[in-house]
Parts: sequence; C-alpha cells; structure tokens
Amino acid sequence: MATGDVLAFHDTLSNWGRWGADDQLGALNLITPEVTAAAAATVRTGRTVSCARPLDTRPAVDNPHPVAHHMIGTATEGGGADYIAVSPHGFATSHIDALCHIFHEGRIYNGYPAEAVTAHGATQLGIHHLRSGIVTRGVLLDIAAVRGVDALEPGEPIYPEDLEAAEEAARLRVHAGDALLVRTGRWRWRAEHGPWDAGTLAAGLDASCLPWLRQRDVATLGSDCVSDVLPSRVEGVVMPIHTVVIVALGVHLMDNLDLDALAEACAGEQRWEFLLTVAPLVLRRGTASPVNPIAVF
Amino acid sequence: MATGDVLAFHDTLSNWGRWGADDQLGALNLITPEVTAAAAATVRTGRTVSCARPLDTRPAVDNPHPVAHHMIGTATEGGGADYIAVSPHGFATSHIDALCHIFHEGRIYNGYPAEAVTAHGATQLGIHHLRSGIVTRGVLLDIAAVRGVDALEPGEPIYPEDLEAAEEAARLRVHAGDALLVRTGRWRWRAEHGPWDAGTLAAGLDASCLPWLRQRDVATLGSDCVSDVLPSRVEGVVMPIHTVVIVALGVHLMDNLDLDALAEACAGEQRWEFLLTVAPLVLRRGTASPVNPIAVF
Amino acid sequence: MATGDVLAFHDTLSNWGRWGADDQLGALNLITPEVTAAAAATVRTGRTVSCARPLDTRPAVDNPHPVAHHMIGTATEGGGADYIAVSPHGFATSHIDALCHIFHEGRIYNGYPAEAVTAHGATQLGIHHLRSGIVTRGVLLDIAAVRGVDALEPGEPIYPEDLEAAEEAARLRVHAGDALLVRTGRWRWRAEHGPWDAGTLAAGLDASCLPWLRQRDVATLGSDCVSDVLPSRVEGVVMPIHTVVIVALGVHLMDNLDLDALAEACAGEQRWEFLLTVAPLVLRRGTASPVNPIAVF
Amino acid sequence: MATGDVLAFHDTLSNWGRWGADDQLGALNLITPEVTAAAAATVRTGRTVSCARPLDTRPAVDNPHPVAHHMIGTATEGGGADYIAVSPHGFATSHIDALCHIFHEGRIYNGYPAEAVTAHGATQLGIHHLRSGIVTRGVLLDIAAVRGVDALEPGEPIYPEDLEAAEEAARLRVHAGDALLVRTGRWRWRAEHGPWDAGTLAAGLDASCLPWLRQRDVATLGSDCVSDVLPSRVEGVVMPIHTVVIVALGVHLMDNLDLDALAEACAGEQRWEFLLTVAPLVLRRGTASPVNPIAVF
Repeated sequence: MATGDVLAFHDTLSNWGRWGADDQLGALNLITPEVTAAAAATVRTGRTVSCARPLDTRPAVDNPHPVAHHMIGTATEGGGADYIAVSPHGFATSHIDALCHIFHEGRIYNGYPAEAVTAHGATQLGIHHLRSGIVTRGVLLDIAAVRGVDALEPGEPIYPEDLEAAEEAARLRVHAGDALLVRTGRWRWRAEHGPWDAGTLAAGLDASCLPWLRQRDVATLGSDCVSDVLPSRVEGVVMPIHTVVIVALGVHLMDNLDLDALAEACAGEQRWEFLLTVAPLVLRRGTASPVNPIAVF
Repeated sequence: MATGDVLAFHDTLSNWGRWGADDQLGALNLITPEVTAAAAATVRTGRTVSCARPLDTRPAVDNPHPVAHHMIGTATEGGGADYIAVSPHGFATSHIDALCHIFHEGRIYNGYPAEAVTAHGATQLGIHHLRSGIVTRGVLLDIAAVRGVDALEPGEPIYPEDLEAAEEAARLRVHAGDALLVRTGRWRWRAEHGPWDAGTLAAGLDASCLPWLRQRDVATLGSDCVSDVLPSRVEGVVMPIHTVVIVALGVHLMDNLDLDALAEACAGEQRWEFLLTVAPLVLRRGTASPVNPIAVF
Repeated sequence: MATGDVLAFHDTLSNWGRWGADDQLGALNLITPEVTAAAAATVRTGRTVSCARPLDTRPAVDNPHPVAHHMIGTATEGGGADYIAVSPHGFATSHIDALCHIFHEGRIYNGYPAEAVTAHGATQLGIHHLRSGIVTRGVLLDIAAVRGVDALEPGEPIYPEDLEAAEEAARLRVHAGDALLVRTGRWRWRAEHGPWDAGTLAAGLDASCLPWLRQRDVATLGSDCVSDVLPSRVEGVVMPIHTVVIVALGVHLMDNLDLDALAEACAGEQRWEFLLTVAPLVLRRGTASPVNPIAVF
Repeated sequence: MATGDVLAFHDTLSNWGRWGADDQLGALNLITPEVTAAAAATVRTGRTVSCARPLDTRPAVDNPHPVAHHMIGTATEGGGADYIAVSPHGFATSHIDALCHIFHEGRIYNGYPAEAVTAHGATQLGIHHLRSGIVTRGVLLDIAAVRGVDALEPGEPIYPEDLEAAEEAARLRVHAGDALLVRTGRWRWRAEHGPWDAGTLAAGLDASCLPWLRQRDVATLGSDCVSDVLPSRVEGVVMPIHTVVIVALGVHLMDNLDLDALAEACAGEQRWEFLLTVAPLVLRRGTASPVNPIAVF
C-alpha cells in the first residue's frame, strides 16, 4: 500500500475517544460481560489447548536475549526453587503487548503523550490494566491450512480475502469482541528450516487488512509471527499492523504464539471457535507480559 | 496434631500410582474434559476477576527478593519494552507450585526420586506439564467472612469444621475436581498492620484438614497465604499442608493469591462458585510459575 | 552552608574545559604516567588489602535490591558456574560512580547535556572510559581514629579541619592526583547497631570541604559511606558533595567502600599512603561499576 | 598426548598439601609480599593498560548468554543508574576462574570433595578468597608475534618450545610467582573472520606444556582464549590445561582476556614484563568473577 494511505488509517480507523477520554482498555471494551458469558456458553467438549510456545532459554537468531532460568534451590538443597528473567517482547516469546508499547507522531492510543512511557514504566496504558484477563470467543483463521501448505513462507503476505476464505472454511464470521488468531505455520517452518530473523522477515497481514480488522471490531489479535508481514512493503512504515492496530484501533496484539496444537485441535473438533482465556501477569506500568493463552473447546 | 499422625498421612492419603506410574499431573487428572465443560456451563454474568496480587518490586519483610522490572526501551527510545525477573516462590508473589517443589523422605509425588530436581531443573513433575492450563470449577471458602472478621490473625488455624461452615454459608459442597480457594484476608491485615514475615507466621489450614482435602478430591488448592497455618504446631514438620498435599496427594498449591476482589464479587453475585482458569507460563523443568488466575462468574 | 554559597561552587570550583572540551576523564587526568610511577615507587612491604565490602545478597534497609548470585552449574552438574546481577549504585555495594551519574541544571561534567544519559546508557562520560584503571597514590584519612572513636555517628559531619588533623596524624599531605579515602567507621557501627537507611543518614563531608578538595586536586574520592554527610544541612541540595564533586570538579566518587581492614593495615604499617589500584569493569555506556580497590603497601 | 600421560600429571605435578591442608589460594601463595614489592619496583613509565574485553551485551556464537545491561535511571529520571547481570564463565567475558570451578575424580584442588560446590555456592575455594587481589609481575608471551602472524588459527596448539621462544624474544624468563599471559591474537582473528564457537575450537597450550607450567611455578595463567588448545587432542580429556592446572596445580586461570593493547604496549615499551593487578569482585562462594586486569609499565 502507499504510505499516505496507511498513515490516513490513523484518522479513518481511529478508536480514540470511543470509550471515553480516560480509557485504558481500547477494544477490550468490546468484551462486555455478556460477550464473555456467551463465549463460555460455546464450550462443548471441555478440551483445553495452550497457545504458547515454551519459554526458550536457548539463544538463536530469533531469540537473541533468551529467557534466563536458574535453579536457586534443588530437591536436596532447600527445596526446588527457581528464578526466571524474561524480556517479553522478544521474537521467540509468546506475549501480549500493552497499548503503550507503540507510538505514532508522539502519541499512544487514545491520544496520551508518548512521554507517558518513561524509564520508570508506563503511566498510561500499562499491562496491569488487563488484570482481570481476557475471556472471550476465540477464532482461529488457519491461513496455512486454507492455502494447503504446512507453513506460509517468511515474508508472505495475507490479504483480506485470505481472512474471508478462512472464515468460510471455518464456517463462521469474525465479529465484534472476538479474539482473532491468525496462523502462518511459523514453528513448522522453523522446525524444518531452522531459525531466522523473524523480526525482519515474517508472514503476516498486509496493511490492506487494517480496515477489515476495524470493521469486524476484533478485540485482540494474535499470530504465531507478529501479525505484520515483514518487510511491510509500505515505504517508511516498518510495522503498519502494529502501529495502526495498537495506536489507532487500541487493539492488543499477541505475538509469537504457538498455534500448531490449536490448529490440530480445531481440525479434530471441526470447530474453529472456542473460549479463549488470556491472563497477563499483573505488572504495574509494564509494556507487555509473557502469556499462555488457553483455548477451551 | 501429633507428628506421627501427620506423617502417617503420606501412606493413608497417598495418590501415588492412582493415575499411573508415569503420571505427571497428580490430582489435576480429576479435571476431565467433562469437568471443564460442566464448569464452563456455570458461567452466568460473564464478570471476570483476577486472583493475583500485582508483581511487587518493593522490598519488604515478606518480599526480600522483589520482582525486578526494568524498562529497556521507552516511548522516545526504541519503543516501550521491559525486562522482568521473578523468583516465583517468594512469599509476596502469587504463584503455583509444581509438584516437584517439595519432597519427603527422598521422594517427590508419585515416588519419583528427589534427585530428579537438580541444578538444571526438574526432570519429573516440572511446571511445563501444566501447559494446557487449569480450567475447572473454582470455589471460594471465605473463612474471614464466615468468622465475621476482616482478616484472620497471622498464625490462626483453620479446621475442617471451618471449611464446612464456609461451604454451608456458600450453599455448595466442594467436590472432586474443584479448585478450592481459601481466603484468610491476609492483604487487608497487611494494609492495616504492615508487612510481616508471612513465611513463618500465617493463617491457614491445620494439618487436620488433610483427610478432608483428600476425601473431597480437590484438584488444586489456593490461598492468600500459603495454605499452611504457620507455625504448624506439628513438631518437626514445618509445613504439613505443603508436604502432604503436594507429595502425597499430588495437589498443586497456589500461594499468596489476592482473594479480596474475588470475595467482593462472590458476595455481590451471591455465588461462591465460578469458572476458574489458571495458565502457568510454559517453563520447561520449572518448579513454579507466577500466575494470574481468573474467575469467571 | 547557605544554598547559594554551595551552588556558587559550580562556578568557582569548576574544572570544565580544564582538560579540553572533549575530556571524558575529569580529575583522573591528574594521574599522569609520572604520578603512577611515583606511586608504585612508594611500595615497600608488598602487603595488599582490599577496600571492598563483599557483594551482599541479603536484603536489608541499606540493601533493598541485593545482589543476585545464582549457581547455574555445580561440581556434580556441568562444573561450578554462577550468575551475578548487580545494581551497582546500591547503598551497600562498593562501587565507583561514572561522571555521568549526576547532573546539575541540565548538565553533566564538562558541560555535556544531561540528555546524553538515556535509557540506552551514557553517550558521554560512561564508566568504560576508565578501562585502563586508576593506579595512583592512595591516602587514608581515618577520621574515626583521629576522633578516637570506633565510628562516627550516622549524620556526623566532617570539616576541612578534620581532614587536616587526619593529615597531620598521618604525617602526610594530600596532593594533586591522589586517591583520597575517608573513613567514618560505618561498618563497625552497622555491626554493633544493625543496618539503617544509609541513603538518608550518613557521616561524611560537610559541603565546606568542597574548596579544600578542589585546592588539593584530588583525582578521586572514596568513603565507607557516600562521601556526603546526610542530611546535608544545605537547604534544597540533597547531596552537595556528590553534585559538586562529580559535576563541577569531575572527580570520580567511590561509595560504600570497606576501609576497616585498610585502617588496620595502615596502623600496623604506620603509613597512611599506599599504591591504590582500581579496575572498573569495562561496561560500555555504564554509569558505575562495582569495584574492589586494592591498596599495596 | 596420550590420555594416561595427561592423567598421570594429577599425581606428578600436584600441589595438593604444598601450602597446607586448609589452603584456599593454591599457587597464589607464591606471590609473597616480597614478590609483590619486587614487582612494584619494576614500574618505570607508569603507563597502564587494560587486559579486559568490554562486557559484551551482543549475542553471538561465542557469547550465547550476553551480559545484560539495563538503565534503571537516566539523567532526566532519578539520576543515571544501571543494572548488570553477568554469567562470568561465558566464552566472551574476561574472567578469572576460582579453584572450585573444575573437579577431577570427585575432587577439587587440595583434595576437597567436589560436593563442596553446591547449588548454594562453593564452601571451599570460592572466589572471595582472592579478596586482597593479585599483585605480581606479569609476563606477556606473545605467541602470535613470535610466529610472525596476526593471530594463531583457531585450534592451533602452543608447545613448550613456543613458550621458550617467546621468553627469548622477550629477553626474560618466567619464574615463580609470575602471572603468565599467553596471547594468541584471538580478537584480531574474530574481527577479521567473525565470531566462532571458541568453546570448542581455540588456539592454546598443548597438554605437553603442563610440566613446564609446574616447573616455572606460575602463580596464575591467562590467555585471550581459554589457555587450552581446543580440541585438546587428548582422548577423553576435553580441557587438560583447565583440569590439571586448576585441580592439580591450584593455579587460577584467566580466560578470554584482551591482550591486543597489552601486546602493543609491550612492543612500544620493548618490555614484556610489568606489574599486573587483578581485583576480583568479592563474591562469597562464587566460582568466578569478571575482571579487568591492569598492567602497569
């Protein structure tokens, strides 16, 4: 897309002020208690599936700052105990971005100044506002399956018509308040070809999907990559999905999920909708949290 | 209780082998898909409540190794990004213990040798076995409310008859597969009196509750303290609840939860049961994870 | 002292520009190779003494963010190996401050803008400029000994006449290029009375010592407290020694040293001068380093 | 060399008991105060040179667990302050190994049991025993220069005759109590060819150097690699230099030094001896410390 057209989305797709001048939750406001209750009512078999990749302590080109995990006690010495250090935004870590993570022209979502995010954390839009969790209908759009491949190639774009083809294959329609999960098959590709720099080359949504996301009013968006196709092919805008979705739409992104087991479960259940629960750690003023989203069928 | 009587529980209440010689999940096996589906079906209003205390970066007598939270990027420098380091077993951190955390006479749950927990992590019973999360009926037994106090005093014991009085007040009965949450009011006490060493002095269950827990077949047990009354008043057994519940029963414990908002919600809804979801981070070979359990009414 | 008089020192005692507009070393420029060689020539017995307190992993009121030390391997598992995490500016950690640590009216030493110190480190005056170490004559002024006490009381000020009395007792005179160490006896006080908040109450130099320090042209200044008397008794200036010494004089400060063994060695050798070597870790853009200064008699 | 011949060195070259059954210092005992004083007396020009590589926060194949360096305050927010986390044994970090780091047949130096090194640190031979530092004559044997190359190739062995050729070129002889530094030119090779796995392929001393090291009675040995040639070409003994030097000789090793500036300074001064000071951090029970050894000419 042309840069100007993408930048215009900051105006035309904006949710600023939609839920009040003091809003901290963005599109999560779409998940009303009624929406949550309706999502719970869809549970049938009770099967549960993790959407998280295990925390990875092994350095790799897509994991340059691996998780540190130290045992600070063992069974024979004081009881098993450990220490975990995580930089959640890493490209191999399943995490949710707070709305304060990205800014555009000096502003974060809802018009707060970017200066709200300082060396002492975020005084607006911190991840702790998600303390009560996300519990809503989840929908998996398995683009790899729809295209009949194990995995999209790194850098391969996804267009609105792909999303709609996946909806059709799943016999459902994404609607307001949904948690939309988009599968590219990244981890299968990685298992076969080895790690690569997924921060610069990744399958994901083309910027032309932005109006679609806004029109469907998704509450949160996740992917096994970073939702953005990379490179973005939008001159001067490195991550248009991240930028517009977080800043303008106020939609929380979940990056680097592992959706392979979920895809298998969906195929097995022949259902691509489920109850999704996401429970970020309550980190005051934080810009992200590692998460383990759980799908319940 | 007499020490010998408590130690005998390791035999009389044991779940070793109940779910196979290779079992890694313990009493979580009681949460069958049917149990999960039935729990989801209890959701009515869709209200969600966190059971976690915010991660605490402030040192205190009950938080000697506080969470480290550093900003490694800011809005004006590279985008908001942070780093979190947690020793999850701390006495101010809401966490779930893996079954490998505690051993007794050289054995962990199911008879695995304690040596399975080494300086390189736990080769048996690691927290990663909970990857698919815990999704079941949660029950709050609000002992402080039943006793008509803001909070139990540190060191105050809870007996089986207290649990049953709370069941009666809640008009329900704890049954197999439940996540049982026991509230003492710790954080209200702390807000009023300041922090104290909650690792040596805490309200909680007397050892005489152990047969009751086994008989009701709870799947997991949580508290705003550490479930054990401390001191234990059992000569030579520092934490009988931790030891017997984890090692013999194979029941995962959740420590240092914040159940105040949950208690208010239960009172407001006039329901002390709810769908509880717990999603530990997928930490291979880990002995615990910080968690943010979410109750859905 | 009156606030205005202290603030005036930023002009009257300034070393800005003295060693060039691009200078990164401040008063360490006074340690020419000749000064180093002369200091080495004073070595007589070869006795060596540490001036560092052991890194402290125990939380305390003066150590709220203790050093983390984890074993990540043991003799029986992969070889002994460890992990150390330090926030070097802590009030219980022997460290050297980089000149970028403190600013005044938007400027750091030599007039660089304070904005040079960002969330990504210090682009001016980082600790890595001390890569080649400090090797010069050290002088201990043992104020506690001169006053005939085990330790100065927390909050007790030291005046220029105390420094001169200590010089006289030591039969020497502090001169240009010296590393001046001032002992208050803090750790003896702490051993007897327990830890206290040494960040707000500490024996140290009164602001009236500032002209003396500039006149003697000390190259670096260290203390077993933080050099400043706290409270400072200068209205509106929390740490006048830190501020003027670092920003105006360009003198590196060493805080929280342990000078007890050094005092004993000096008394034993009947010499209060020695070769002092300080070797900061080479931390690019860092604002400090933990150090273990070694005195050689 | 044949495996049996290398293993025999544990008997024939042993220093166990040489400095008493309780000894914690090993060959550092050779650095008597007289040796230190004599070393200080060799200082002529006062030029100082660092032997440390800057702490490296960039992941690489030889730096899989890079140093973490976070700013936890900035000039505009609370004053410049930082946080450093180091796993000192990393292959890109200049560090000194404690004598507890390596064991052989269940024993560490001086016959202490390997079990002294537990998940809670080393109860024997911890790095804190080096609190008073190492101050002695340093000698650089610049093998790359002697061979007339910029750098030895990774995996290239150094033999006793190379050490003696380098002595001759330097017009000196290594003697008891010296700190011996052996330069292979690693960092020049890395600058030209990029990083490689220096933990499995490195220029260094052949096992046949072991009797030479014992005969000369070096007090400590350092290199820009890890002293061992890797692979070792000794069947079944991965690091014969590390194993025999640390366990049998009780000689502290310094790994991954940067000796390039030192080599230039030696060539400039036409002296390959100097005063060397090494000041490990005082880490109780630690198995290593990052260090910045300083040479004084």
